[in-house]
Amino acid sequence: MLTSYRLGIDLGGTSAKIAIVTGRSRIVREASVTTAGQPRPAAVVDAIAAAARSLVAGVKIAGVGVGVAGDIDFRRGLIRVSPNLGWRNVPLAALLKKRLKRNVIVDNDANVAAWGLFKTQAPAGVSNMIAVTLGTGVGGGVVIDGKLHRGATGTAGEIGHMTMVPEGRPCNCGNRGCLETYAGGFYIVRHVRERLAAGDASSLRKLFDTDPDQISPLSIYQAAKKGDSFARGIWAEAGAVLGTALGGLVYVLNPERVVLTGGVAQAKDFLLAPIRRIWRARAFRVPMRAAKVVVAENTAHIGVIGASLLEPRP
Amino acid sequence: MLTSYRLGIDLGGTSAKIAIVTGRSRIVREASVTTAGQPRPAAVVDAIAAAARSLVAGVKIAGVGVGVAGDIDFRRGLIRVSPNLGWRNVPLAALLKKRLKRNVIVDNDANVAAWGLFKTQAPAGVSNMIAVTLGTGVGGGVVIDGKLHRGATGTAGEIGHMTMVPEGRPCNCGNRGCLETYAGGFYIVRHVRERLAAGDASSLRKLFDTDPDQISPLSIYQAAKKGDSFARGIWAEAGAVLGTALGGLVYVLNPERVVLTGGVAQAKDFLLAPIRRIWRARAFRVPMRAAKVVVAENTAHIGVIGASLLEPRP
Repeated sequence: MLTSYRLGIDLGGTSAKIAIVTGRSRIVREASVTTAGQPRPAAVVDAIAAAARSLVAGVKIAGVGVGVAGDIDFRRGLIRVSPNLGWRNVPLAALLKKRLKRNVIVDNDANVAAWGLFKTQAPAGVSNMIAVTLGTGVGGGVVIDGKLHRGATGTAGEIGHMTMVPEGRPCNCGNRGCLETYAGGFYIVRHVRERLAAGDASSLRKLFDTDPDQISPLSIYQAAKKGDSFARGIWAEAGAVLGTALGGLVYVLNPERVVLTGGVAQAKDFLLAPIRRIWRARAFRVPMRAAKVVVAENTAHIGVIGASLLEPRP
Repeated sequence: MLTSYRLGIDLGGTSAKIAIVTGRSRIVREASVTTAGQPRPAAVVDAIAAAARSLVAGVKIAGVGVGVAGDIDFRRGLIRVSPNLGWRNVPLAALLKKRLKRNVIVDNDANVAAWGLFKTQAPAGVSNMIAVTLGTGVGGGVVIDGKLHRGATGTAGEIGHMTMVPEGRPCNCGNRGCLETYAGGFYIVRHVRERLAAGDASSLRKLFDTDPDQISPLSIYQAAKKGDSFARGIWAEAGAVLGTALGGLVYVLNPERVVLTGGVAQAKDFLLAPIRRIWRARAFRVPMRAAKVVVAENTAHIGVIGASLLEPRP
């Protein structure tokens, strides 16, 4: 049974989480390494490798998977660019393989989350799934016929930067009207602050006047829960744009399941209700009824678990 | 070599085309059956079967594939609904199998065209492809990892009814702002007639005043070719909406190739130029550069050829 352990690494701009994961996706040991303020990839890789080596002592590891925020060349195990880490063209798989003496698979963190959610939470009968990570930004991963879809350059799943409004809100990516500018935590919070500054009435005003930094997806959710109509409107708008984007993808990909995850997804029904309302109004009922949209549960360790489940390409 | 022949059937609202196709996708014999004004499925199926039987006399046929305009349940070989034929819940595969004594595979005509274009025209190295059929309406088909993607209910590929403008132009499907209302021949022609009726200046006016029915995708293309700026603006608008829709799908699916086909696609560079302009402005260069967008060539028989190439599901 020892051979079924795998090592999962979730490499982010603040820290790298490292875990030994069983064949049933249970974490048996874990560690963490700080990455913030550490721009030298070699130093971070050394620290991760050292932590991993002490974790795996006495345990047989079948493989190593890493999820990284950024543009990843899955085939070559290369980080093309990771703005969170401040890295560019880092051959992470090769660097880690040299230190750990094991094959290493590297993929984008949203792909890894999608794969983890598919492998550990998708009910039987689901073989096509879209996962949307609603955090500060919006990422995504697509599972087709039971496999994580990478595409030509490993960039598949960039749902957050689909153009929803050609002349819409400016996005940090450089374009306008990306889905992320309507459904990403950074933009939702900024939009709420702007509207409060402009005088919109809301129970969030006291918080805003005390300290604008207190405005967060969580506080906007809590205000909505207490009946604040401004906050409810914010979620209705985010949900409507998400519903339109995902409704289009359901027409094109016809999945059995669409999963929302990440901090912003914790608004749950305030997002799901407008999404479902838009889906119910779509003319073609068959694909819309076949696609169940849910918010993922128990996602605290999905980064390391998803990474541990990465498979070498065939 | 005789065993490599296959029968391809392209069943539309006007006629059914039937062809014997070689393993190298050459048509060796063909026939046609009228379907217009024939609402009884059994009569149409009998006529197709009779024509097919006389075509295949003396030839060994390995399999039969049919492409049908409409909502098709690929797994069961069932036409859920075909507005063009006026049919609903017709078990076409079973009806034809009984008459032809051969396995029959049925799929949506846009899927069939996508598959035919992929199998006969995609260069080596293309394994992910989006095909868009720009005819009276807009259909589509998606190839993922070298396979035609059907999805949960066989409805995958409904690109034409992605919502591009939530409160946009009314679509015959019942929704508003579908891609089809900006890039489908029916809507482009209607929009041109409306604008000419409202007094817009164009070299198309003479044609319009003589007979509004002369306004067609072809005449709008010809006017654009001669430098008519109104006609060029029409294509620029259609191309821009197509570029936005397909740009989003390139972000999500990261294909090597996007193929436009159908009558409206014959506007070629008047559509390709705005699509490429929008793609070049997208922030993430890697997937956009990897995706080549082209207009398909030699598509006269792609319906029967694509149908002949349909494979039984694994």
